Amino acid sequence: MAEIANSKLTVIGAGSVGSSLAYAALIRQSARTVALYDIQTAKVEAEVLDLAHGTQFTGSSEIIGGDDLSVIEGSHVVVITAGAKQEPGQTRLELAGTNVRILQSMMPQLLEHAPDATYILVTNPCDVLTVIAQKISGLPVNRVFASGTVLDTSRLRWELGRRLGVSTSSIHAYIVGEHGDTEFPLWSSASVGPVPLLDWSRAGAVTESEFDGIALDVRDAAYKVINGKGATNYAIGLSGARIVEAVLRDEHAVMPVSTVLDDYQGISGVALSVPSVVSAAGAVPVAGTPYSEKEHRLLHDSAAALRTSLASLGF
Amino acid sequence: MAEIANSKLTVIGAGSVGSSLAYAALIRQSARTVALYDIQTAKVEAEVLDLAHGTQFTGSSEIIGGDDLSVIEGSHVVVITAGAKQEPGQTRLELAGTNVRILQSMMPQLLEHAPDATYILVTNPCDVLTVIAQKISGLPVNRVFASGTVLDTSRLRWELGRRLGVSTSSIHAYIVGEHGDTEFPLWSSASVGPVPLLDWSRAGAVTESEFDGIALDVRDAAYKVINGKGATNYAIGLSGARIVEAVLRDEHAVMPVSTVLDDYQGISGVALSVPSVVSAAGAVPVAGTPYSEKEHRLLHDSAAALRTSLASLGF
Amino acid sequence: MAEIANSKLTVIGAGSVGSSLAYAALIRQSARTVALYDIQTAKVEAEVLDLAHGTQFTGSSEIIGGDDLSVIEGSHVVVITAGAKQEPGQTRLELAGTNVRILQSMMPQLLEHAPDATYILVTNPCDVLTVIAQKISGLPVNRVFASGTVLDTSRLRWELGRRLGVSTSSIHAYIVGEHGDTEFPLWSSASVGPVPLLDWSRAGAVTESEFDGIALDVRDAAYKVINGKGATNYAIGLSGARIVEAVLRDEHAVMPVSTVLDDYQGISGVALSVPSVVSAAGAVPVAGTPYSEKEHRLLHDSAAALRTSLASLGF
Amino acid sequence: MAEIANSKLTVIGAGSVGSSLAYAALIRQSARTVALYDIQTAKVEAEVLDLAHGTQFTGSSEIIGGDDLSVIEGSHVVVITAGAKQEPGQTRLELAGTNVRILQSMMPQLLEHAPDATYILVTNPCDVLTVIAQKISGLPVNRVFASGTVLDTSRLRWELGRRLGVSTSSIHAYIVGEHGDTEFPLWSSASVGPVPLLDWSRAGAVTESEFDGIALDVRDAAYKVINGKGATNYAIGLSGARIVEAVLRDEHAVMPVSTVLDDYQGISGVALSVPSVVSAAGAVPVAGTPYSEKEHRLLHDSAAALRTSLASLGF
Repeated sequence: MAEIANSKLTVIGAGSVGSSLAYAALIRQSARTVALYDIQTAKVEAEVLDLAHGTQFTGSSEIIGGDDLSVIEGSHVVVITAGAKQEPGQTRLELAGTNVRILQSMMPQLLEHAPDATYILVTNPCDVLTVIAQKISGLPVNRVFASGTVLDTSRLRWELGRRLGVSTSSIHAYIVGEHGDTEFPLWSSASVGPVPLLDWSRAGAVTESEFDGIALDVRDAAYKVINGKGATNYAIGLSGARIVEAVLRDEHAVMPVSTVLDDYQGISGVALSVPSVVSAAGAVPVAGTPYSEKEHRLLHDSAAALRTSLASLGF
Repeated sequence: MAEIANSKLTVIGAGSVGSSLAYAALIRQSARTVALYDIQTAKVEAEVLDLAHGTQFTGSSEIIGGDDLSVIEGSHVVVITAGAKQEPGQTRLELAGTNVRILQSMMPQLLEHAPDATYILVTNPCDVLTVIAQKISGLPVNRVFASGTVLDTSRLRWELGRRLGVSTSSIHAYIVGEHGDTEFPLWSSASVGPVPLLDWSRAGAVTESEFDGIALDVRDAAYKVINGKGATNYAIGLSGARIVEAVLRDEHAVMPVSTVLDDYQGISGVALSVPSVVSAAGAVPVAGTPYSEKEHRLLHDSAAALRTSLASLGF
Repeated sequence: MAEIANSKLTVIGAGSVGSSLAYAALIRQSARTVALYDIQTAKVEAEVLDLAHGTQFTGSSEIIGGDDLSVIEGSHVVVITAGAKQEPGQTRLELAGTNVRILQSMMPQLLEHAPDATYILVTNPCDVLTVIAQKISGLPVNRVFASGTVLDTSRLRWELGRRLGVSTSSIHAYIVGEHGDTEFPLWSSASVGPVPLLDWSRAGAVTESEFDGIALDVRDAAYKVINGKGATNYAIGLSGARIVEAVLRDEHAVMPVSTVLDDYQGISGVALSVPSVVSAAGAVPVAGTPYSEKEHRLLHDSAAALRTSLASLGF
Repeated sequence: MAEIANSKLTVIGAGSVGSSLAYAALIRQSARTVALYDIQTAKVEAEVLDLAHGTQFTGSSEIIGGDDLSVIEGSHVVVITAGAKQEPGQTRLELAGTNVRILQSMMPQLLEHAPDATYILVTNPCDVLTVIAQKISGLPVNRVFASGTVLDTSRLRWELGRRLGVSTSSIHAYIVGEHGDTEFPLWSSASVGPVPLLDWSRAGAVTESEFDGIALDVRDAAYKVINGKGATNYAIGLSGARIVEAVLRDEHAVMPVSTVLDDYQGISGVALSVPSVVSAAGAVPVAGTPYSEKEHRLLHDSAAALRTSLASLGF
């Protein structure tokens, strides 16, 4: 009994997103073993060493890694953060070409070393890459998904919590759709504790036009962060670590991750973030999520945007 | 700067509820200092010693305590668990007389030593005692409240999570009213992630009559636990520690605690659990909580039951 | 990949020690699944229900249990707390007869259902029971051990930390030997941070005779707690949960647990607590632990006391 | 009672060290409020926003910040990370001139806004800056100290744990002296659990020359990380957060931080890291720490190096 099967997370890509995600995962003890993989030898070894040097303060989790794909053997979850990063002024979709090519060459190698893992795409455009990763891998749709709008949803809840004077944990609201310019909040089902958000609004605390402003702020928040610091890494690191926990701990938590849809609100074949049950089985969209007529239309608009992106990339 | 003002919790009563609550608070580091007070010297000293002996494993929180009221000086929160305990077969209201008399003699002494604390009643019947404690103390209603149906709500979410295959953290539902036989769930606003619970039901996973059965199970769960082990202590210990954290960390989290109501759904002068914002300022009912016609009626029934209890006790 | 192998802890015995240990393990998330087993149906079901009712507040760990041995299937660690409890005035060794008989009938059944688990004895007299459990099971000595003086060591560190004004985490000292009247501290290797404890003493903060008093206090602390509350449960619950973590997380942490010794300081065939490396492989005594002449003699005295106990029980 | 005095940490400098430290502090809930201050407006606002966007996943801590010194009002601890960063090939001491000038202009402003805080220097050369910060501020020596060799000690323990197959938490060893090229381990008092490290070595697991190699590796680890990723930030972020906790929670934990010494091993007037008790009162060196003759000499060599640096900077 010298071996107790323990959770293993591999993060692909030792850039600022990948290493922040590994850092958050170690501090939170999201997994027993965190592996960091990158093709840039000196960079990945330096990140692993810097992370390892802090493990006196992070309990029993351990960090390993390097430039050899053998580090991913035995992974339960593989999070892909590798890719070119979003530059100031650049849209997420403009990144697509380069990152599609990186994924196409990498995915078969990852599958060879971690055939039983659940794959989580963080690299942008994450929805596009999810469709492609699922096609390349042939994995069931629940086992290949993107972090999607989990980050945007966290931004929304933080902003609503601040405005309404309520703990973020009591804000139940989701951003859905593309992780990008066509994303939008599901206001119709949003609530503060038991109170529908729109009723809260009517009570005067926040007007409906202010809510629309909040939604815009959230959508543009990534651009603001990128303009100020050149990239986003901390919030996406935490979002990724949190999703990983839901898989490794088989939580069945509801999160807005992005899977290839199959007749969801009449949409099939593209990946969009919608409220999904995340567990050891991966991610499964929650069928009964209510959509107002406007929200239904916005979701189809988002699907159309994705299809255009996919087509322009030859998929 | 040798003194950094840190959070202090005092638990009144070293019985199984009070000591379990202190244990949970120490392990969770709910407060920097936990004090345990009881008039039974040998008992309280033994509990404090047993709790202190485990602090190698609980980080930087510390436990103190004894039979001298000076241990409560400087408390930010005082949780009252002292009282006669519910016997098998006994209703919560039958406990009332004894525990009212204990509270009447104790409250003035507590106020003398911890005039600035927020008071949380855990002793049953907690709603009755909240009304009396508020009257005796003259404190604002937000600063004297009961743990109420936080426990019952936790039971409901656990049971719903199990039946629906969803994480407890994604179940948004509240038990409200008296912490006792007239309590009931707010089905009309309950949801699983973004899906209204009643829609989830209609989809066939659980029938509406099963939901009614779950509500009954939850209401009677305390009796089942008491029959099997003579008391309940672990879940109420955790519930109490969690409420304390919301106060000490100024969280503004929405929780169904019991405050003396003032024109809430037309009810005044009795304490009932309803969704409330819990922060360093205490507990404030959330005004906009929606009630179906039936739920509105049930809340008034619960208020009437409380009034009867209060009247029979001479209040 | 719907199944991620996760850690499972089973606690045998739903008395105050077993249920407190399960409570601590749930709050600390020591294991993904905690199972509680007892032959008393109503009692164990009530404890499981009470523990389950609090899981809204304890993250993703889950509690199961009952009176059917099937609940222990798949356990990585089994902690045995079942047995008659120590009464006020009774020595730990007086409990032996009854608890030996319980263990003899139970151990073969446990092994049948959890053949690959590591077994940790908490029931007293834990050193005696460890020898017997190892004989009955035929398991390697590292896979059957007692919590031993981990609790006593925690008591010692708490008391030293208080007296010296230093964090418990900076006190490096061990109580070794029998978990009972012949236990003693290894003063010769004890330190406060980098400072030998005996040098700290000579500097005047604490005199050597005060240290002897502290050692006596620690040895008698259990009696004081038992006199005041009828049993000890909280500190032993935390100690047990902590040891379980060291096994499940494969920590290789040094802890004073009790294994059947094989030529340790010249002692073989009895179980005594000595500093040991605790990992997924179980517990292995640290060979190089220094003993002063007096400490060496006291360890042999403790071994002799154990041998007498074993002989009087027919082993 | 709407105000419960809660812990506030301010981090000065929103570079990779400062923001990683804030990130670690938020995830660990080291302080109730974390403030991040920098003179670069766009940069600090972007970091604060990125950190805030993750707070859905970090409990009840909050992040604020900006370019206005008013954000530091009410701080209990101020951690200074601002300064030019160490370039590949550059020694820590070569950074001195620039960072001394930054500190000289900044310290009076910080003191004006946070006169009661404890100040922790992380900017390098941290020992030099500690001497200067203490002189400028006139604060008691215990209230102005550097993170010093807490990071190097964490590196040492990680490396020793790996080599010896023992949990980092069971390695009791310290790197002392200058946080730089003259630092060295206190082998004479180092232990693994209760076993002196040098005895463990003699037993053959690791030879004495291997220990010397480990010490060199640790000293040069920062250079290796800097060569690979251009800076170190994760381990120093965790080290800083951990020290802050020891102050805010009044832990009295023993840590090798750097204070201006007063007749410590015969050394006065320079700041060197030595085992110190860290609490709400700041940091106080542990007087009785044993030094071998060689270690005593190395500490004086380290002091001489510091004096040379200080002199070359005109102090």
